[in-house]
Order: sequence, then C-alpha cells, then structure tokens
Amino acid sequence: MMMMHRWRRSGDFIRSACKSLSSFRQKHNSMSPSVTGFMNRYESKVNTFEPNAWSHQYRSFGSSSSSSALKVKRNPLFSSLESKDVSFFKEILGERNVVEDEERLEIANTDWMKKYKGCSKLMLLPKNTEEVSQILKYCDSRSLAVVPQGGNTGLVGGSVPVFDEVIINVGLMNKVLSFDEVSGVLVCEAGCILENLATFLDTKGFVMPLDLGAKGSCHIGGNVSTNAGGLRLIRYGSLHGTVLGLEAVKANGNVLDMLGTLRKDNTGYDLKHLFIGSEGSLGIVTKVSILTQPKLSSVNLAFIACKDFLSCQVLNHLDGVRNPVSSSENFYILIETTGSGETYDREKLEAFLLKSLEQGLVSDGVIAQDINQASSFWRIREGITEALQKAGACYKYDLSLPVEEIYNIVNDLRGRLGNLANVMGYGHLGDGNLHLNISAAEYNDKLLGLIEPYVYEWTSKHRGSISAEHGLGVMKANEILYSKSPETVS
Amino acid sequence: MMMMHRWRRSGDFIRSACKSLSSFRQKHNSMSPSVTGFMNRYESKVNTFEPNAWSHQYRSFGSSSSSSALKVKRNPLFSSLESKDVSFFKEILGERNVVEDEERLEIANTDWMKKYKGCSKLMLLPKNTEEVSQILKYCDSRSLAVVPQGGNTGLVGGSVPVFDEVIINVGLMNKVLSFDEVSGVLVCEAGCILENLATFLDTKGFVMPLDLGAKGSCHIGGNVSTNAGGLRLIRYGSLHGTVLGLEAVKANGNVLDMLGTLRKDNTGYDLKHLFIGSEGSLGIVTKVSILTQPKLSSVNLAFIACKDFLSCQVLNHLDGVRNPVSSSENFYILIETTGSGETYDREKLEAFLLKSLEQGLVSDGVIAQDINQASSFWRIREGITEALQKAGACYKYDLSLPVEEIYNIVNDLRGRLGNLANVMGYGHLGDGNLHLNISAAEYNDKLLGLIEPYVYEWTSKHRGSISAEHGLGVMKANEILYSKSPETVS
Repeated sequence: MMMMHRWRRSGDFIRSACKSLSSFRQKHNSMSPSVTGFMNRYESKVNTFEPNAWSHQYRSFGSSSSSSALKVKRNPLFSSLESKDVSFFKEILGERNVVEDEERLEIANTDWMKKYKGCSKLMLLPKNTEEVSQILKYCDSRSLAVVPQGGNTGLVGGSVPVFDEVIINVGLMNKVLSFDEVSGVLVCEAGCILENLATFLDTKGFVMPLDLGAKGSCHIGGNVSTNAGGLRLIRYGSLHGTVLGLEAVKANGNVLDMLGTLRKDNTGYDLKHLFIGSEGSLGIVTKVSILTQPKLSSVNLAFIACKDFLSCQVLNHLDGVRNPVSSSENFYILIETTGSGETYDREKLEAFLLKSLEQGLVSDGVIAQDINQASSFWRIREGITEALQKAGACYKYDLSLPVEEIYNIVNDLRGRLGNLANVMGYGHLGDGNLHLNISAAEYNDKLLGLIEPYVYEWTSKHRGSISAEHGLGVMKANEILYSKSPETVS
Repeated sequence: MMMMHRWRRSGDFIRSACKSLSSFRQKHNSMSPSVTGFMNRYESKVNTFEPNAWSHQYRSFGSSSSSSALKVKRNPLFSSLESKDVSFFKEILGERNVVEDEERLEIANTDWMKKYKGCSKLMLLPKNTEEVSQILKYCDSRSLAVVPQGGNTGLVGGSVPVFDEVIINVGLMNKVLSFDEVSGVLVCEAGCILENLATFLDTKGFVMPLDLGAKGSCHIGGNVSTNAGGLRLIRYGSLHGTVLGLEAVKANGNVLDMLGTLRKDNTGYDLKHLFIGSEGSLGIVTKVSILTQPKLSSVNLAFIACKDFLSCQVLNHLDGVRNPVSSSENFYILIETTGSGETYDREKLEAFLLKSLEQGLVSDGVIAQDINQASSFWRIREGITEALQKAGACYKYDLSLPVEEIYNIVNDLRGRLGNLANVMGYGHLGDGNLHLNISAAEYNDKLLGLIEPYVYEWTSKHRGSISAEHGLGVMKANEILYSKSPETVS
C-alpha cells in the first residue's frame, strides 16, 4: 500500500513506442528460409560434423568461435551459375529484377547479425507467383541451389546464402490482395513488410496478430516461414492459429494453393502448417491469408521491478534511457494490456499491481502516463539486442523452457562461466521464451566450448526447445535432436 | 430504445446448461479417425465411383440414398481375422480387453447417427501407448486393417469400421498425466472424456479451450484427430493453436513423441499439426498436451432475434422448450461472453445489444437472468440435432463459407428443392460455419440427386470448405477435391 503513489495513471495513449524506433528495428527474427525442397544446399549429418571437409568459412564477423554449427561443405551435386542462366532469368524477369550489382549482393549475402555471409553472385526479384514458379522450375532443371529471402532480419543465418546459392528475394511481391472488414481476414503477398500491413490495418480499425522488433523490415512471408513469435503471442496466439491459408511454390516450380480464408476447414491434412516454421525448406511462401484483430482503443503499459529471478544490465548501453523506477532491482517486467474500456482497464491493471505489491511479489513499478513514457519503456525492451551488440561479442540463444526453469539456466551458466563472460536473460515471460545472451569482449574457443553443447543439453534435459521463435537456420540445423525425437526427425 | 425493458439483467450465474443435458450430449463431431498409415482399408478413387464393384452395403439406417459416397469395396490386400490373431491380442492385452461379445461389438460397429455400420469381429482396449504400439506392429505384420475409435461421436462415419477392421478403442487410456497451474498446460491420455477433463480443470480454476455438444462422450484424442471446432473456437482459437504437443503411434507401431508442453518451439517441421485433423489416417493419437485457460467468473448469455438471414424451426420438436423472445423472427443468435468483471461485462453486453437495437440490427432479445434461463437457451441450441432427427430423414452438411454467403446457400437450396424437403441452417456465425440440414420424411434418390453434388459445387465455387469441423470420414472422403487443390491432394 505504501507504494501506491508510484502507480501513476496513464492518459489515453496508444502504444506507439515502436513506431519512433524504426532505426534499430531492422533486426530480430523474421525470414530465414534455408533452401527449397528436395535438395540440400549443404551437406551435413545431424550431430556429425566434418571439421576437415569444409572448404570455406563464411563468417565475416567475430572469430570462428562464434558458433560451432557452421562446419558444412557445399553439396557437389549442385551446379554453378553460368551466363546462360543469367540470360534466362533476365528474359523472364526483366533486366532490372536480376541483380548482379556487387554492392547490393554484399547486403543480400550478409545477415543482420553480420555473423553469417554467403557468396552468391545473383539475386532475383520476382514480381508474382508465376515468376517464382518459373525461377524454381528452371533452377530445378539446372540443379542450381537457391535461398529464399525476405526482409533478411533473421538471427540464425537462415535468410542468407551459405555458399553461392541464387537468392530469391520476394520484396517486390508486396501487395495487399484483399481485406474483409467483417471477418478481419487479410490476404496479401509474401513480401509485404509487417509494419506496412500494420499501417494498412490501422486505417481499417484492425491490428496484426503479431508484432516484433524487426517489423520495419521483416516480411509476412518470412514471418510465416519462420513461425515468428514476438510480442503479441500471449494475446493472440501463434501463427499456427492465426494463419488461415497460404500459397507456396515447391522446388520443382509447382504451386500449392492453400490460400483459404476460412476459420474452420477439416478436409484432409492441413498442409499449410508444415510450411509455417519450415524456414523455406519445403518451398517459397508467396501469399498469406491471416486473421487480424479489431484494434482496441485502451492501452496500458506498466514497468515493474522485482527483487529476484532475472538480472538486467542493458540500461548501461542505451543512450538517453533511464530506469523508470527509482530502485535498482534484479528483475524487470513490462506488461501491456489492451481493451475497450479505458477506465475499467486501467483500474484493473492498477488493482492487479497493487495486489502484487501487497503480496510482496513486486517491489516497485510505474504505469506509463503518456506516449512518451510508453515509448521510453518500450525503448528499453526493444533496445536490449542493440545494447548487447555494443558490449562486444555476444552469443545468443533463443530457448523455450518451463517458466520456472528460465532463470535457473542463467544462474547455472553464470556459475559455469565465472568471470569469463556476462550472462543475461530476457525474453517473453508469459511464453516461457528466454533469450539467453552471453556477452564477452571477444569470441573465443574456450568460451564457446563451455557454452555449447552445455546450453543445448541443459535445455533438452528440461524438455525445452533450443529454438523458441528464431528457427534453426544454419546456426542450429545440426542441433535438432536436442529438441526433437529421432523418430520425429526421421 | 423502446425495447430496452427486454434486456433483463443476468444474475451471477455460471454457464452450466451443458452439464444438466448430458443425456443428449452423446453426439456430434469428435473421434473419427479412419485408418492408420500406409494402407487404405478401402479402395476408392477420388470422385470416381465404382458402383458395380462394391460387395456390401453397410448402412443400417435410412435408404441407400442417405449418402452417395459409400460406394467403396474392401481392399483385397488386407487379411481376415484368424483365431491365432485373437490369441495373440489376449496374450498382450489380457482376456477382458479383447472384446468379441456381439452386443458390445454391435455398438462399436455403429456410428452415432446410425447411418454407418461396420462388421468388425474384434475390439481391442489397450491400456497404454506400448500396447497400442504392439497391436499396430502386429496388425502391420499380418496386414490386418484397423480403425481407431474414441467416443464414437463423429457424424461422418469415420470412427466405425467400414468393413471388418479391428477396432482399437482408446477408452481405457483415460489418465490425466500432469497439469501445470502456472502455464495452464494439461497433459493427458487420448481416451480422456472431454467433460471429465473439464470437471478436473474446474477444480483447478481452468477451462478447456474447446467445448462441444458431444463432450459427455467424446475423447480428447478424437477431438484432436478430427480437429474438433465447437462452441469456444471464436474465443480460444482452433486446436492448431491450443494443442502444444501430442504422442502418436504410426501404423508400423513406431511411437512419435511430439509431446511438448511449450508455447514456442521452432525446431524444424511441426509434425503434430499433420495429426491434428488427419482423422487417424497417419496414426493413433495416444497422448495430448493442451493449453487450457483460466476460468472466468463472469458469464453472460444473450438470446436475440433478427428479422432476416436465417430460419429456425427446431423449436417444434423439443419438449418443454419455449421461445425466449415474444416475437417470432426468422433468425436467432446466442451470444455468450466471459470475463472477470461482472458489472462491467454485463453493462458492456447490454450496451452492445442496445446499440444493435437502435440501429435496427436486432428486433428483440433477452439476457439470461439465472442458471435456469441460461440452461433453457443452451437447450435450444444444443437440441437442434436431436430435433432434426425426430423430423425424419435428415441430410447433414457441415460447411465453412464466407459469412456473407452462409444464408445464400440455404435460400438457393430452398428454391431448388421446393416442397420436397425442409432446408435449415444453423451453426457458428462467428466462424462462418454453417450446419446445413435438409430434412424430409424419408431418404430417396431423387432428393439426394438434387442435393449432391450441388451443395459441394456451390461451396467450392465460393471457396468454402465441405467440412468445417466434422472431418471427411467415410461420408466425404471422395469429395476432397471440392475443397483442396489437386496439387495439394497429390
């Protein structure tokens, strides 16, 4: 009760912190498909590395110790690009949508983390499904490896070439095809940028069921292909629940029309779910049908502090950010509620927080009073990745664990690593999704050896997932058995 | 405004209409798997019937005209049951769980609608996954066809044998394995009856994310295998969103452990989604992990009438049921809301209804005042199937359509059938799910010829689904191309 004065009332702000922070939103998990269909663009056996067999190193950032999963070699069954191939693509796509420019290729070859880098000599920009189909059919016939690419905001090396794959970027396929204001069903092309869809829906009084830090760059097709989680999962559920249909092109060029717009459809296997989260390995998603939600007028945001569970030191590295609560605790929680009854919603959140205070669960907290304050709260949460990058080398793991376990792995790892590195955990408390970050001055083999496979083994032992929302990508393709049974993988 | 007096206040009732109506809840869509794995238990070509080739008729109710999709013949590659097989099963399951009793087999061979009937001579009752695995491994080696069975409440002939398949009923696998009061994740065996799970959760302060008329009999394994929709879909989403994991046994006896309990897990293909709604054709679901929801204390139920869109004549056939609103309109809607703030929730619903009245969208309505009134409202909605059965023969279709189309097909069909039959539509307005019912004095070929394939073609033309929530079963196995593209089916 004594701290009740700290629960300041919020005005009628709408959460907009994200919108003003576009400069560092070009990040996070999004598109990361690795390869189409029937052929692997690299050879690797699950959990069996061939350290002496690989001919290239494609990391351009950090040392060779930034990850242990990159020991793969190019599959010799794939052809190499020839000038006749380029000519063919120019014929079907037009000159300007066949990119050979080195500067543009440099960007397309490099992932957001600058940790993974390919050496593709060609990026194709199809304008529609038919062109994607023609490209893939041709590449299939010529045994040319391809990598689908969207906003290239993934964190696991899935959206860039590993070797010299042809990059198929769907960025020009960015049209909204239909929106039904009764059902809230949006149908659009895969290359639509998530934030653009959000802006479009805002004019209709709707919101996307997902939101994530990378929304200024990531594509809806990539979101679907990687089963992006993000900030609204606990409110609106996963994409397996909200994606109603999709269209995809298989590696042989065949188009799979699964673009339903129905809430219920029980007619045989629901194949679209295989594509959600398959990271492009089954085909390229070209269109998406998704259930959007009515926009709610009342938004409240609370920033609260607790004495235990989680340590958070990122404030040191973000300019102009201050701790919203006076005390410095070990664990902070950001809670956003949305509803339609402003007074009621605010009082409900306040009552919840007051009760938490009285029960000793919370030691301090504040409810945002206006848009600026809300922005500053979100700036902290969304700036964590940026802050960690500034600290030097950073090993990142995206884990799902039973909620009661998510701080134990942080503690265990601190004990294991001692003063070799700083171990930090943040993420999505309601989802049991921990972003485990280990920052050090530089990448080194000794440190990596202490982290991997320890983190994966720890996660597997607790029946967690070694990839909650980022996907496997190149980084964890070989680690799948830590989270899936051999029978399932087979 | 003039009708505001009709919006009576509800007390603090908890919706419990369903609980008192268990006698006629033994129905509706639930378990309906058709066959395990790699072999078809019957031969049929999609959309190509072989009317002269089938050797049996398995319908015991209605004439041969109750459906056109049953023209299938037994696959000669399957063996027939021998006494050595029965001996083997008795050895691994024990005498009492190998059922040869004719009376019990009669029930297990017949579907709830009494429209589909098999002639199996054996029902097996495994007690755990290992026994299911042993059964399937043996049947695989002996080429014995099997049909998985749960509560046998499906409406499309999917949960009973077509010919002489061995029935594998999972009813003895009915244990709750774990429940996490923080995350709300329930893990249980496939044979748990939905209502028993609801009762268990009630003591913990949680509710199942699905509810349906058959809950007194249907099994959670069957719900998952048929992707049951039901009454809470618009509130909590489909099973693709709420089922977090499952365990299944393939036709060869291999166990697939996909029994995760995590909200987020992006490590490769999420195979469990293939099993959700696959009607047993990929394997037998043996365990389920599902996200349940906190029970909300404030429940409101409104029964409202509108002048247009839908005709509903079922009140004639239900004893002791009266129209809750004084006027007799063509279209009724039942709205149930749940929340945590009783006064606020009620006022919100009242304001919504008042606004709808003022705008002329609604012509009359009443909010339930107590449990009895709520029960009587639900009795009407849940008694529709029962009432239609009493009217004589009834052709039932379970369609998904764009919401604006769901009454057009009713109208079109009325025009087409004239006075040959009564055409009625009800269902789930928010989901676009129409239960289209055509009732007549008796089944006959002429009538069937006018209904099928007209209804399927109409649905396909409007990009609807010929099975919203019931599944394909035997009834619609051959009609899949009306709702899925050839490439997808292939």
